Amino acid sequence: MKKRNLPLSRVYRLLEPGPVVMLTTAGLKGANVMTMSWHMMVDFEPPIVACVISNRDYTFETLRRTRECVINIPTVNMARKVVGCGNTSGSKTDKFKKFCLTPVPASEVKAPLIDECYASLECKVIDTTMVEKYNIFILEVVKAWAAPHRTYPSTIHHFGRGNFMVAGRTISLPSRMK
Amino acid sequence: MKKRNLPLSRVYRLLEPGPVVMLTTAGLKGANVMTMSWHMMVDFEPPIVACVISNRDYTFETLRRTRECVINIPTVNMARKVVGCGNTSGSKTDKFKKFCLTPVPASEVKAPLIDECYASLECKVIDTTMVEKYNIFILEVVKAWAAPHRTYPSTIHHFGRGNFMVAGRTISLPSRMK
Repeated sequence: MKKRNLPLSRVYRLLEPGPVVMLTTAGLKGANVMTMSWHMMVDFEPPIVACVISNRDYTFETLRRTRECVINIPTVNMARKVVGCGNTSGSKTDKFKKFCLTPVPASEVKAPLIDECYASLECKVIDTTMVEKYNIFILEVVKAWAAPHRTYPSTIHHFGRGNFMVAGRTISLPSRMK
Repeated sequence: MKKRNLPLSRVYRLLEPGPVVMLTTAGLKGANVMTMSWHMMVDFEPPIVACVISNRDYTFETLRRTRECVINIPTVNMARKVVGCGNTSGSKTDKFKKFCLTPVPASEVKAPLIDECYASLECKVIDTTMVEKYNIFILEVVKAWAAPHRTYPSTIHHFGRGNFMVAGRTISLPSRMK
């Protein structure tokens, strides 16, 4: 998918609505991808993001060691791949191959972008203070990519056990909120 | 709105899809409410939630002092009130009165539930380690309330400057994910 460089000041608009994302890392045995819903914006610019990655996940140790990842945002047409990646461990499976995902080299980190996702955020881990107690990693987005789109993309939003809400219509209200 | 006690094990299903929420606190000058999108689940049960509250917000000091709040989840019919609360400071305005919101006493905390919201989560602050550096509060949900509903409620999801995505259709895929 043809993505353009996105100004870092706009990154919060992608993550604030709470889409399911696919997190890639570059491990010793190659790239891996996991499905993740537990993330939030922490600051606008530079964009700081917090996320929770279970210490039972294969990604956990890789992220702790490499301190780099890419947050990729899929749309509803990828729902089966998203669920598949969430139900499979990277410890034994090459999930890029199994789910026909195309890794594309990133510009600032070793973890790959996922070509099929409409947006990809290259991140560096900047704080691990809360990893031991809560599995919370603090990331800084150092480079952002997004495919041009006129309407809000059909992101998916997990509400448990494989049930997802698909992004619906959009509304605009006069607001001074950023 | 008639809400029932919701098992704490189900709380993650409400927050994981990333809805805009309205956070209430009980301050020295009465209850206050602010609009918030920067939150994430941290653990399932007991439900632990992280959220970011700017130190420029009136709620910041109140939450730090009282260590109690309620996360209320509005639906699209309340969008104007949600934006209004986001654009007004509680330092000079009684937002419950100004936006015709009905406070209802909570059971475990002093901050009120908002009657018009379909779900309300009574929370206690359990960790302030990351407040100084990132404005991140760690909350534990101690009591949860939700109105019975057959379909996923029409939550709103902010993507910047008063633009919101409204929850659309739902899809279900076979999954081992929680």
